[in-house]
Formats: sequence, structure tokens, C-alpha cells
Amino acid sequence: MNESWSNLHINQQRFQDDFAELCLIGKSGERGLSRTAFSDAHQAARAWFQQKARQAGLEVKVDAAGNHSARLECAKPDAPTLLLGSHLDSVPNGGRYDGALGVLAALEVLRCVKEHRLQLPVHLEAIDFTDEEGFLVSFLGSFAFSGKLTAQDMANPRGDRQLLEHSLQQAGLTEQGVLSAKRDPASLAGYLELHVEQGPLLEKEGVSIGVVTHISGISFYRLSYHGKAGHAGTIDMEVRRDASQGASAFTLAARQIVLEQFRGCFANVGAAHYEPGLFNVIPEKAVISLEFRAAYPQQFQQLREALLQRARQEAERFQLEMEIEYLGQRLPVEMHQTMQDAVQQSAHQLGLSAVPIIARAGHDAQALADICPTGMIFIPSVAGISHSPDEHTHWEDCLNGANVLLQAALRWIVNWDKEEKSY
Amino acid sequence: MNESWSNLHINQQRFQDDFAELCLIGKSGERGLSRTAFSDAHQAARAWFQQKARQAGLEVKVDAAGNHSARLECAKPDAPTLLLGSHLDSVPNGGRYDGALGVLAALEVLRCVKEHRLQLPVHLEAIDFTDEEGFLVSFLGSFAFSGKLTAQDMANPRGDRQLLEHSLQQAGLTEQGVLSAKRDPASLAGYLELHVEQGPLLEKEGVSIGVVTHISGISFYRLSYHGKAGHAGTIDMEVRRDASQGASAFTLAARQIVLEQFRGCFANVGAAHYEPGLFNVIPEKAVISLEFRAAYPQQFQQLREALLQRARQEAERFQLEMEIEYLGQRLPVEMHQTMQDAVQQSAHQLGLSAVPIIARAGHDAQALADICPTGMIFIPSVAGISHSPDEHTHWEDCLNGANVLLQAALRWIVNWDKEEKSY
Repeated sequence: MNESWSNLHINQQRFQDDFAELCLIGKSGERGLSRTAFSDAHQAARAWFQQKARQAGLEVKVDAAGNHSARLECAKPDAPTLLLGSHLDSVPNGGRYDGALGVLAALEVLRCVKEHRLQLPVHLEAIDFTDEEGFLVSFLGSFAFSGKLTAQDMANPRGDRQLLEHSLQQAGLTEQGVLSAKRDPASLAGYLELHVEQGPLLEKEGVSIGVVTHISGISFYRLSYHGKAGHAGTIDMEVRRDASQGASAFTLAARQIVLEQFRGCFANVGAAHYEPGLFNVIPEKAVISLEFRAAYPQQFQQLREALLQRARQEAERFQLEMEIEYLGQRLPVEMHQTMQDAVQQSAHQLGLSAVPIIARAGHDAQALADICPTGMIFIPSVAGISHSPDEHTHWEDCLNGANVLLQAALRWIVNWDKEEKSY
Repeated sequence: MNESWSNLHINQQRFQDDFAELCLIGKSGERGLSRTAFSDAHQAARAWFQQKARQAGLEVKVDAAGNHSARLECAKPDAPTLLLGSHLDSVPNGGRYDGALGVLAALEVLRCVKEHRLQLPVHLEAIDFTDEEGFLVSFLGSFAFSGKLTAQDMANPRGDRQLLEHSLQQAGLTEQGVLSAKRDPASLAGYLELHVEQGPLLEKEGVSIGVVTHISGISFYRLSYHGKAGHAGTIDMEVRRDASQGASAFTLAARQIVLEQFRGCFANVGAAHYEPGLFNVIPEKAVISLEFRAAYPQQFQQLREALLQRARQEAERFQLEMEIEYLGQRLPVEMHQTMQDAVQQSAHQLGLSAVPIIARAGHDAQALADICPTGMIFIPSVAGISHSPDEHTHWEDCLNGANVLLQAALRWIVNWDKEEKSY
């Protein structure tokens, strides 16, 4: 591997054409995208990815968790693999950049390296992880890949269990297979992911590249308040045990707790469902979803305690019973210093401004961080909007990101090779 | 019609056997009942009612709104009809007495009168009104019967519109038919309904019979709060326009408004639904159901104003847009004095204690009150529980209620006849 790599750029036209094609698969409305995990649109996007990889002469691979990969093998069969990737699934009615851009850029890096016949000391793999968005099981693919997925995660998914069963079957996967899809960590050199920021900071500061230093921890729960059903027009208001009251009070309190005591953290009650759910019956049960995030381990734990304690207090206040169902978490992680350095240096070498940044959203990189050197590259999101049809990133920033991914991957490999592969 | 009527009692054994049989149709769990309008169980209960009527030699009739009747014609074809009845439908997972007991007691009255060959100056009709509970369209049957149902009620039902279309078709009804099912008010002598109280007052006071003086007004709305979707882990908490906040704040406020300013009235937020309804997306839309009740016209109007004003204030407070969708109402009504007198006197003549009472729940009688002299008889509900599998009324109270219905109907007819049918 000679020095010619440091002048390589991705093929802009091909990258742009591919992105335009990919955006049509699962297109929703004018600018939106609905490509939830295992949906027809998602499967179509994965088939499209495989076709593009094959056309470029890359190997394609699907593991037992449905993770789709394109591989470029190096000359040494027993060399480890540097993974590049993200995910092709989206939230329902989400945006076009979240995930998809990172998979496409990874594919483009492999094609560039292959076209320029770079002889690398590692295999390269562009990977599309399954259900990053957690439509069925949060991080199904990258958790299975890194050996973190549990039978409990599958048995009690945050999405619909029946749909999960049906989806696995349709995709030719089995629950047992998914739970045994762990890749041998010794076979991995590292993991690097390009992603849109999904927040407003880079745009606000006018910076091109975010060098991710930490990824926030995220945890999700299902909270169920239990009261007593009854006729909504005859039971005195004073004596009702109305489950809606606990759920509503907590929904307001969760926001207040973060605003008053945990600045910079996040909490979201994204779904609510009352039972029996009728106009004229006092809600017997109110079920809400809770997700919260914090960048640092101690803060993450304190936020959890504050929220769950308040959830219980609101139950008591309205004389309700309650059930707190833990659905999973991803701990806060730090990005590997070698990856941060490679990204920072590559951005500067390309003449792009770069700043350290905390990833507030969850990313597959979080699942990989404790099994191999892991890094992330962020590019600006217009107005910080994501998980919405209004998600947008200027095309110039997408190109910059893909070029930084290419350069940072190669730079990291060179350094890793120099350091005698001892990271 | 001689004086022998005043010693008549219903057939206790037959009434009890019939009730036991009817409770099996749509049985849900140990003691509950799911017989929502047009469900298989509901249709089966109506078929059972027709069969019992035919076995008793009564005529059966189904009108264009699906209201099912058993009729006992008197000697004069042009005589008006005294209606007795209630409804066989239930809320999902509701109780066994709400509605069904009144229909069964009405049937039993007709059988008694027929067996004793009483010659009445009116036709008698035991009627089972369609969808009193409003699973699809609130008071579909009695509103159609009394000419109050509008095309708008059908086009924008409080239940699922598609299910309504399907249900009408399955039942052999048409929307146009339902909207033209009005019975000529001149053909009606009056309406009297036996029902369980669904509240705790009679039991608390140890009284057997409630003489209903007023029926509370009830109104329903669908409230939709509109914010902005976005990634729940990246958009700053300070700038979110989270629809869940407006909906939750109003849900708490509705209860407080009634407790603090409208004692004796009721408000219920029975259902909530967030969109897109995902863990990791800020709710863009939060839709809740609102139902409120008050016994007197002015109070009803003031409660409406207070609730809807607050609903709008909560939208403003959280920088949300909102939509208030009016879904219908039943105005507060007064029971006809002649009916109140007949019920009160019959109870005393049977040696039963009786007190005036306000009907807090909605009843088909509400739809009839402005087209013919209308009355209601209440019997105690254990612990006031209703719309729940725990709904219960002691069997002795059921028997008392049925005997008061029989006696009050006959007493009212005698008085009406004496007063030269001039009510």
C-alpha cells in the first residue's frame, strides 16, 4: 500500500445517482421515506444494495441476523476486517439520509478501493445492519453481530411480537439463528460509520465534519398504569382510579425533569394507549413508552433513577398500580482515539473544518465499540431535523462525509499497520 | 281494563331463566359481557330476543335502524303505542345488566299482559334500541327512531367508519334506511325504561327504586394536538413542539376543572393515540377522546366552555396547533311528571322505598323525551360499578324493578286513559 491512497476521492456522480435511486425505494410523500425493518421497501432496498455490490464485483453476504454486507477481500485470507456501514431501515415516514447515506458511502469506499486496486492489509466490508431504528427489536442486527442480543430482547420486543415472528419468517431467518449471529471479534480490525448528525450543532457552528467522541446511552421502558374501569358518567370524579391521570402526569413530568435537572439529556414519551380506550369508560390501563438518553455513564444512571422514581410517585398520587417494563438499553460509549484521530486528520487534509461532537442519537457503532476500535463521522443536518420527511443534508456535505470516510478508513489502516496491529 | 291489573306480578322464574340464558350470549370471562353493537354476540342476542317473543305469541318487528321490537297489539288498530325497552348491546368487556335487563323486563311485561288477557287502550311494544353504547354511533337506534340522527353522525362516527359500513351491510341495513327510520311521534303514547343505576346512590341510601327526574346531558369531542415530529434523541428539549404535552396537560386539567368548579359533573378522557407513536420520534400528533356530562342545561353549557377553553390554552402553552372535533351530544332532559308519578306510586304500592334521582349516564330515554311522555326506573348497582365485568345488581332488585315497570306502565295507561289521552 503506497502513498497514492491519500489523493483518492469517491466517484461523485455514481454516489449521487445511487443515492437518488435508493431514495425512491420506500418513498413516502414528497420527501419522506418509510422503510421500516423487514417491510417490503426495506427488503427491496437490501436487494438493490446486493445488486449494486455484485455489479461492482464485490462479494455479498447475509448473516443469520439478516445483516447484509458487500465484501472486498484482501490478499491475506486470515487478515481481519475493517467494517464500514450503517443501516438501510428507517422509521415510518422518516427521512432519506438517516442510515442509508452511511451504507451507500461504505459501498462507494469499497468500489473506489477496488477500482484503484489498493492492496490493503485488511478485508473491507460495507455492512447494512438490521433494524437499527428498533421498529421491532432495537439494534437487532448490530446487537446480534456483537453478541449482545438476548432471548429476552426477542421474546419481549419493543415492537409487535407477532409482526417480528412473521417478519423473520418472511426474511428466511429464525429466532435461534438471530441469537447465534455473533461475529468473532478477533476477525474484526475496527468499525467506522458515517452518519448525519440528526441535531443542529454542526450547522449552527458552520462546521463540515463532526468527529464523534461519545455516543449517548439510551434506555427504553414500557410503563403501564393500572386503575379501575367504570362508567364514565356515574362514578364520582373524587373516587376514580383513572389510569390516564398517572400516565399524563408522568408524560409532563418527564419533560420537566430533563429541563430542570438534566440539561443536555433527553426523554421522550412517544406512544400512549389506554384500555379499554372508549369514550364512556374510565381508563383501566394506560401504557406509555419511555425512552431517555444521556452522554455519560453516571448521568445516564441518575436520569434513569429520577424518571422511574417519578413514574412510581405519579402512580401513588392517583392511587394506581404500576408496572415498569425494561425493554433494553445501549450504554454510553466512547469512540476509539485512533478513529477520532484518523477522522480529524482526514478532514483537515481535505480542507474541511472539523470539531469533536457527542452523538446524541443511538447508532450501530454503539454495539461495536466494546468489541473493536470504533469511530463515527458526522455531517450537518439542516435545522437538526431527523426522523421526519423534513430531514435534509446539503449534498456537498454528503460528498464531504463520503470522502472523509474513504480517507479516514485508509489512514486508520495505514496507522494500524504501522503500529503492528496492536490496537 | 278492570282493577285486576294492580295485583299483577311478573313471572319470576321465567324472568330469571331468561336472564341467565341471555348472559351467556357474549359472555366474556367469569362475569363480563362483550356484546358491542352489530358484533356476532349482539346479533345472536337479538335473534334470541325475537325467538322468545315469537314463542310468547308476540309479533316481532325490525325497523330500518335495526331496532328490534316485540309487539302486543290492542283491539284498536289506530291506538298509540306505549314503548318499554332499553338495549341489548354492551361496551366491550362490560357488565350483564346495563341495557339487557330493561329489554328483558319489557318483554316480560308484554308476556304478563298477554297471559292475563288485559285489554289495554294502547299497543305495547318492547324495544331493543341499536348501539346505545355508541361503539359505532352513539344512540344510533334511538336517535334514528326519534328523528335526531343526522347524516353527519353517520359520516363521522365516534367509532370506526369502515366497521360501521361493514356492520350495516352485515345486518342488512343501509345508511339511507337508518337515516329515514323515524317513527311517527303521533303513534307513540309514551316510553318507559327500566335500567340499573350505574352509580352508587341507591345502594348507599338503601333504597330500592330510583324515580328518574332528569337525565344528564352528554357531549363528545375528539381533540387533536399537532406539534412537530423529530428525532427524540437530538432535538433539544427546550424547542420541541411535542403533541403529547398538550394532550397530557388537558387530560389532567379536565379532571381538575370538574373537581374544582363543576362538582357533580363528569369528564372522561377515555382514549389516547399518538402519531407516529414510536419510542424514538417526538409525537407529532396526539388525539384524545373527551366526554363530559352535566344534569342541567346551563351547567352543561358552562362545563363545555370551560373544558374547550382549557383545551385551547394547553395547546398554546406548548406551542401546538389544535383541532376540536364535535362528535355529538344529547341534551339534558327532564322526565315527564306523569311517568315520575306512576313509578313513585307503583313502588309504594309494592311496598318498595323510592327516591327521586338524576340519571347520570346516557339512556335511550333521552332521545325519546321530547317526542312523547318519557320515564325511567332505576334499581341499585352494587358499589355503583358499571361498564365493567364487576357490574352487579342483586337479583331481588332486578325483580323489584321488573314489577315496578309492569305496574307503572299499567298505572300510567289507566291515568292516561282517564285524562282522555291528553298528555
